[in-house]
Amino acid sequence: MRLLLLGFGAMNKRTAALAEARGHEIAGVVLSSPKDGISYPVFTPADELPDADALIDFSHPALVKELLASDPSLPLIIATTGEKEELVRLLQDKAETQPVFFSANMSYGVHILQELIRYATPLLGNFDIELTERHHNKKIDAPSGTLVKLYDAIKETRQDVEPVYDRHAQEAKRTDKEIGIHSIRGGTIVGEHEVLYAGHDEVIAIQHKAQSKDIFANGAIDVAEKLVTKPNGYYTYSNLGVD
Amino acid sequence: MRLLLLGFGAMNKRTAALAEARGHEIAGVVLSSPKDGISYPVFTPADELPDADALIDFSHPALVKELLASDPSLPLIIATTGEKEELVRLLQDKAETQPVFFSANMSYGVHILQELIRYATPLLGNFDIELTERHHNKKIDAPSGTLVKLYDAIKETRQDVEPVYDRHAQEAKRTDKEIGIHSIRGGTIVGEHEVLYAGHDEVIAIQHKAQSKDIFANGAIDVAEKLVTKPNGYYTYSNLGVD
Amino acid sequence: MRLLLLGFGAMNKRTAALAEARGHEIAGVVLSSPKDGISYPVFTPADELPDADALIDFSHPALVKELLASDPSLPLIIATTGEKEELVRLLQDKAETQPVFFSANMSYGVHILQELIRYATPLLGNFDIELTERHHNKKIDAPSGTLVKLYDAIKETRQDVEPVYDRHAQEAKRTDKEIGIHSIRGGTIVGEHEVLYAGHDEVIAIQHKAQSKDIFANGAIDVAEKLVTKPNGYYTYSNLGVD
Amino acid sequence: MRLLLLGFGAMNKRTAALAEARGHEIAGVVLSSPKDGISYPVFTPADELPDADALIDFSHPALVKELLASDPSLPLIIATTGEKEELVRLLQDKAETQPVFFSANMSYGVHILQELIRYATPLLGNFDIELTERHHNKKIDAPSGTLVKLYDAIKETRQDVEPVYDRHAQEAKRTDKEIGIHSIRGGTIVGEHEVLYAGHDEVIAIQHKAQSKDIFANGAIDVAEKLVTKPNGYYTYSNLGVD
Repeated sequence: MRLLLLGFGAMNKRTAALAEARGHEIAGVVLSSPKDGISYPVFTPADELPDADALIDFSHPALVKELLASDPSLPLIIATTGEKEELVRLLQDKAETQPVFFSANMSYGVHILQELIRYATPLLGNFDIELTERHHNKKIDAPSGTLVKLYDAIKETRQDVEPVYDRHAQEAKRTDKEIGIHSIRGGTIVGEHEVLYAGHDEVIAIQHKAQSKDIFANGAIDVAEKLVTKPNGYYTYSNLGVD
Repeated sequence: MRLLLLGFGAMNKRTAALAEARGHEIAGVVLSSPKDGISYPVFTPADELPDADALIDFSHPALVKELLASDPSLPLIIATTGEKEELVRLLQDKAETQPVFFSANMSYGVHILQELIRYATPLLGNFDIELTERHHNKKIDAPSGTLVKLYDAIKETRQDVEPVYDRHAQEAKRTDKEIGIHSIRGGTIVGEHEVLYAGHDEVIAIQHKAQSKDIFANGAIDVAEKLVTKPNGYYTYSNLGVD
Repeated sequence: MRLLLLGFGAMNKRTAALAEARGHEIAGVVLSSPKDGISYPVFTPADELPDADALIDFSHPALVKELLASDPSLPLIIATTGEKEELVRLLQDKAETQPVFFSANMSYGVHILQELIRYATPLLGNFDIELTERHHNKKIDAPSGTLVKLYDAIKETRQDVEPVYDRHAQEAKRTDKEIGIHSIRGGTIVGEHEVLYAGHDEVIAIQHKAQSKDIFANGAIDVAEKLVTKPNGYYTYSNLGVD
Repeated sequence: MRLLLLGFGAMNKRTAALAEARGHEIAGVVLSSPKDGISYPVFTPADELPDADALIDFSHPALVKELLASDPSLPLIIATTGEKEELVRLLQDKAETQPVFFSANMSYGVHILQELIRYATPLLGNFDIELTERHHNKKIDAPSGTLVKLYDAIKETRQDVEPVYDRHAQEAKRTDKEIGIHSIRGGTIVGEHEVLYAGHDEVIAIQHKAQSKDIFANGAIDVAEKLVTKPNGYYTYSNLGVD
């Protein structure tokens, strides 16, 4: 494939390297304004874009909207976070004339973790749920965005839950409504998430461990390879077809 | 509830103790022949059985068939292993006139583990699968019966797999078809099972850990409490309704 | 052995059952005042105590001090928590005339966990440390007493640390001084502790998992079996001799 | 520091990149014969070597012996596997005139894992031991070299053990002498090792997980930074001083 990249931060730099290692070609990089020192042709959304099989975005909502305004006609893989509702609406419009894929998290494994949680939670109504994530010691926010998504997935079927972040401050038994949330930080851990279902004399645990941030870049390339074979339409991991 | 117990080995002894602790009553024990030294009334399948709300079996196929021949008319919870095809046929016949539940494994958690594996395996087609179980140092067979079930569940959608029990004997890369099977034995570990899906830079693991064999006895009592509220029919964990 | 039990709460009831199952005999129970409904002879510290090979305490400081005041002359296994300094002084005096063992935690495995932490912490000076414990949903306090001991063991050689119980409230990178403390609660989990050392591209984890509270009662019986062979003196797990 | 590299395979290529990222300089590469296409000056052991603060070896015994024969006089960090006895003898001779460090495994964490096993094994005499390692699906040998070292460390104090690689072939209880050895293979897992001590109602587990092969290259650079401050002598991780 010939790929266009929207944005050229750490993630799309890695996408370029991994795509080339996988035998693809980078047709160019699309930025809001021209920039020197990039070893690929640089375009802005207003320019006529070069021929390409698909575009991979790891940028931000403003640049995505700028791109959409210029009416590009190739398969789009969009991995922006923020302004979700508006973006989805715009992307669904665009999907009438080309295949468009959207996910705020390009890791297929994290997507499957979420699906497993959606599947398991209603089946394990009597089990207590606790969520734990582990990340490196430079991460500023806690809990992680992925953990928040897992919590939201649980809440779809167990509505009256509440997060508990600190148990040492209280002297009380756990209630059914509590979901303990634990953010472990240390070293260079890339990202691990565990959902624990604790029942009577048995527990079930579902874990995802990322070993490298490459899972996001490779995930986007995997999606591109599939998307170019698809009819026009709006795609997410749920309808793109299994790995 | 008033419960009849079919068989009185270690598991139904524990069922009796736990059922009483949960406020139920043991109406009696049904054995193939009378036996002394049991603190509950003892019956054989040929006797007129006392009034009871449900019967819980942890015995063997011969005794179950003897019981069915005497045409008992109460909800039946059958947890026998062996002669599965014939038993299922007999139990489905009986289910026309009373609620009948059958499972060779009365742990609800293990059932859910199996369902999660069924759900995840086709979604993770590019991931390598490895199975590990841990049990106490007195266990004679390896791998465990539960692990064999998990393997069978995987095989439903990934047909051409083959088990690999020992990698130290060969000098070769793993193939896609291999499913490594690992039986850890030590101390008094009750029973742990892990299914590992290992992909490119990420892994997903699904685990079940039993802390006590009580999960089987309590599982049967849980089923009995639900089954007595159900219309006639043949039930398994898949259609009994969630926990 | 013939054993005297000091206190007869849940733990010494279990000690009695396990000791008998292991072929020992219960000579009697010592309580602060006589009590009915106990199937062993009951004594108070003021009574002349029956012949016995050792005494196992799972009671409280007041009863231990009462016993010591009556000058018992048999090997003592003392597992009381609270008033530690005073008790240790009294027990060391008593140790001149009989073997005396003291530990606030009778699990040998937990003792070894602590020793491993003492050993590892100064060797892993550049690693971040995080502590996690898991217990059942009825536990009122958090973190567990054992986790506090592990934290204290770390502090012996890494003095300027501070516990962090809740990271979601702050937006900041982890500092070197932080030790994250995580209390997971759910189901009937007996007790699990993990010390995580997270470094550059590698982690070391040391875990202890209890499957049953019997480890404390069996631990005391194990100690008694060794203590009766020892010369007079004050013993802890550190000088009693290895398992 | 100015560093010389002995050998220029994958590991020393990574050492060069990481050393430069850490502010060090590569003075050159030493190979058995000249080679084109290397972006550093290339030397053979017979050449006059350039000024450097230390030499890092990731090569093979033949090249190390060739280097030693040419009598280099700078701190040496040697990470060769094979011909261990002879190499240690040669290196100890050389250590009279310069600081020399030797380890067949440059991961400090793996070294600590081994030390923890040495410390724990004699203290846990009644516990069953099982060893598990996890590596990527391209690894040809099983078990890993690190697991073999862990096994050897156990054997130092538990002499009459025997490895068991496959339990499914036999129908028998585990014996005390067995050490189960489990080699899990899948995806791109870099390397994980677990030593499980399983006792009566409790287990202790000690784990090491590597996230990247960089731990070996960074480990060598860490050692170099320390070694250049040391007096002449023969060093290993045991006497170099803690991290």
